[in-house]
Parts: sequence; structure tokens; C-alpha cells
Amino acid sequence: MKDKLKIIAFDADDTLWVNEPYFRENELKFAELMAGYMSQDEILQIMFQTEMKNLKLYGYGVKGFMLSMIEAANLITGGKADAAIINKIIALGQDQLQKPVELLDGVEEVLQHLQGKYKLVVATKGDLLDQQRKVKSSGLQDYFHHVEVMSDKKAADYSSMLKKLSCTPSSFLMLGNSMKSDVLPVLELDGYASHIPYHITWAHELHDEEPQHPNYIKLANIREILGHLD
Amino acid sequence: MKDKLKIIAFDADDTLWVNEPYFRENELKFAELMAGYMSQDEILQIMFQTEMKNLKLYGYGVKGFMLSMIEAANLITGGKADAAIINKIIALGQDQLQKPVELLDGVEEVLQHLQGKYKLVVATKGDLLDQQRKVKSSGLQDYFHHVEVMSDKKAADYSSMLKKLSCTPSSFLMLGNSMKSDVLPVLELDGYASHIPYHITWAHELHDEEPQHPNYIKLANIREILGHLD
Repeated sequence: MKDKLKIIAFDADDTLWVNEPYFRENELKFAELMAGYMSQDEILQIMFQTEMKNLKLYGYGVKGFMLSMIEAANLITGGKADAAIINKIIALGQDQLQKPVELLDGVEEVLQHLQGKYKLVVATKGDLLDQQRKVKSSGLQDYFHHVEVMSDKKAADYSSMLKKLSCTPSSFLMLGNSMKSDVLPVLELDGYASHIPYHITWAHELHDEEPQHPNYIKLANIREILGHLD
Repeated sequence: MKDKLKIIAFDADDTLWVNEPYFRENELKFAELMAGYMSQDEILQIMFQTEMKNLKLYGYGVKGFMLSMIEAANLITGGKADAAIINKIIALGQDQLQKPVELLDGVEEVLQHLQGKYKLVVATKGDLLDQQRKVKSSGLQDYFHHVEVMSDKKAADYSSMLKKLSCTPSSFLMLGNSMKSDVLPVLELDGYASHIPYHITWAHELHDEEPQHPNYIKLANIREILGHLD
């Protein structure tokens, strides 16, 4: 693999830096704002259903999350969410859009090793502007050739991206924490893919099985990829 | 120019299809929802100020527009915007995200002529998913090599895009309806750029002067570009 590899793409959220815990934190704060109307479990369930209903319209990212919280608040309270509550929801989202970026262990070390040897790319879902902000404030910008923000991470989306970058799947390695979004679709194209486990995964991204594909590289952490490339 | 040209990029909104009128229509519907609290002029002014305040956080596109309408509604009504109003604002935005795509005059003819001779790209601001949806439902998808969604359209953003596409400015032509976003930054890089006038422009995109640059191609409509390329 390592001889023909040209592009290594890294998922961003929960691969390079902390992300999902901020969504979960804000969901719990949202549930506190809704307390008294339903149980926490029911509130989170309605919020998840609202997000899934809106996913086709909004795509991924914080802005869609904010809009779904507002819509869910009106459902959960039966229309009793007042301006104070709506403003608090907006403030939760705006805070999340300005969170400092917390790098995950081993990331910078790996990028330092691979820099100059491969074209390194960030390949991520979410809001374009927010992801660019995070790359900039992460201090990692100079390691990367550019940022690819994808509306989804299915095989067809990777295929479009590879076409745009004039790269074949056999010269492409993807690393990320989502088996469903970062690993399986890339293996489907016969590209190379590694799963980097992270302790928390959004229900929408869950996938249990280990892939059975010769191009799957199993890792316990991001540092281990170096052993496959050096 | 035409001998060394490799990539022709088209702005999307109000260059390929109708867009700004939908924002203006929804702003007027928003002002109707707020009627009784302030004059239409004051309502639209607060909405614009809210959008400008949030632009750095939200970027361009319908989702940010929706969030700014909700925030402005709470300001304009002094916190009296109830769930019915908030739900109506959400519905306005969700409708806008599902509008059929209305092609502008001459667009398909121009794309047919240029197809196969140059790499044709959509280069647009806005929400990634929404822009991809519009390309798909426009029926124009097969003319384009791919869609570039940019978080902003300053010279540095075009520079990053050209780097990603391995293209020099002297092989690049940009066409669009915004002098400020589609023409001036590309000329700044010594690329080629054409302004295609459209009858309505968002206040944030207004720019009065004609550029004085040898690579500026003045057009009265999109069809006229063919005379410069054939």
C-alpha cells in the first residue's frame, strides 16, 4: 500500500479534535431547559427524531443542530418555549461555534511524520465555515493541503472527491473514527481505510461489525498508522 | 485567453438560477409576521444587522438566514415572538430549502457550447448540501466536473481553490453576478473574470465600480461569453 499511496485524508471531528462531547453536552443543557415538560430520555428522543427528520434538508453541522433544537423545543413544550428559552438555545449553539479546539492525543505527532511524504487532506462533514475555523484554530493548518467538506460520506461522495482530486482509490487512505462514514464507503471503492476508535459516537454513526476487506487497517490509536506507512 | 484556459467556474445563485428573489420574498414574509411591532423598514434593518453580526459564525446560506430571522424576531418583538411565529419562520426556511430550481436565461445554451472544451465547475458560497441539491435538481449536473462550495469568495479563497484543482490563475475564468465576490478577487489574482448582471443583489454584495483590469471581460448577458471563447 505505502508505495502507491498519494493522498491521506483525515476525518476531523473526533479524529483530529474533540467534537461529539460538545454536542452531547449541549443536548444535556437543552434537556435542562426543557425539564418539567418531559423526562430527559423523552426530550433527547424527540430531539434525535427531529434531527433525523431534518437531516435531508439541513445536512450535518451545528447550524442544523440549533434549528432542530428550536423546533424540538416547540414540540416538547407544546408551544410554550418563550423567547428566553429560544435565545438560550441560540446562545448554546453560538458558544459551540466558538469553542476552542482541543486536539486529540497523537494527532500532531502523526501529521509531523507524514508531512511531505503524502498529500494530507481533511475530509469532513459539517458546516464548511465551522470546519475551516477549527482547522485554523487547531494550529494544524500547515500540515494540510486543503479541507474537503462533504455533504455526506457515502461511497458516491468519496468517489466525487477522488475525481476532483484526480486520485484513484488505490492511492487513497482514509482515517477516521466512524466505521460507517470513514471506513466502509472507502473500502467499498477499494481504497484503504483505518478506524481510529473514539470513546463516544453519535447514534446516527453507530456501526458494530468489523469490516472484512484486505484494505482495512485495524488500529488501536492514530499513532499505529505510522507502523503501516514507514 | 481562450488558448490557455482550462477551468471555467460559474457562480451558482443568480448566475445559473434564481436565488436572491427567494431570500427577498422570505424577508417580506418575515416582516409581515413582525408587523405591528415596527415599520417594515425597521424590521428589515434589524434583520440585516443580525445577519451581519452572525456572518462570521454562520457563513452564507439558508440555515444561517433562518437562525438570524429567529434571533431578529426576538429582538423586534421584545421577546413576544411565540412558538407559532417561530414555527412559521422555520417553515419559511424549510420551504426555501425545497424550492424548485428555476434556470436563468441562456445558461443551458452556454453550458452546452462549453461542455467538453473546458473543465466546468460550480463555485459558490452557501450551504454545501443545499447547493448540491440545486445542482442536482437543476438538471445541469452532467455539465459540471464538480461543485466547489466556498466559505467566502475573497482572493485567498480562490487561491486555495485553484491550488486544490492544480490550476493557475491564467488558466481560470470565473463568471458570476457579484462584482465583489465573483469578479474582483479573481482579477486580483490575475485570473479572468466576467460579470453577468442580475436585476437584484443583496446589500452585502453591492459594488459600484467597473474594474480596470485587462482580464476583465464585460458582458451584458451570459451568452456573450461564447463570443470571447469561440
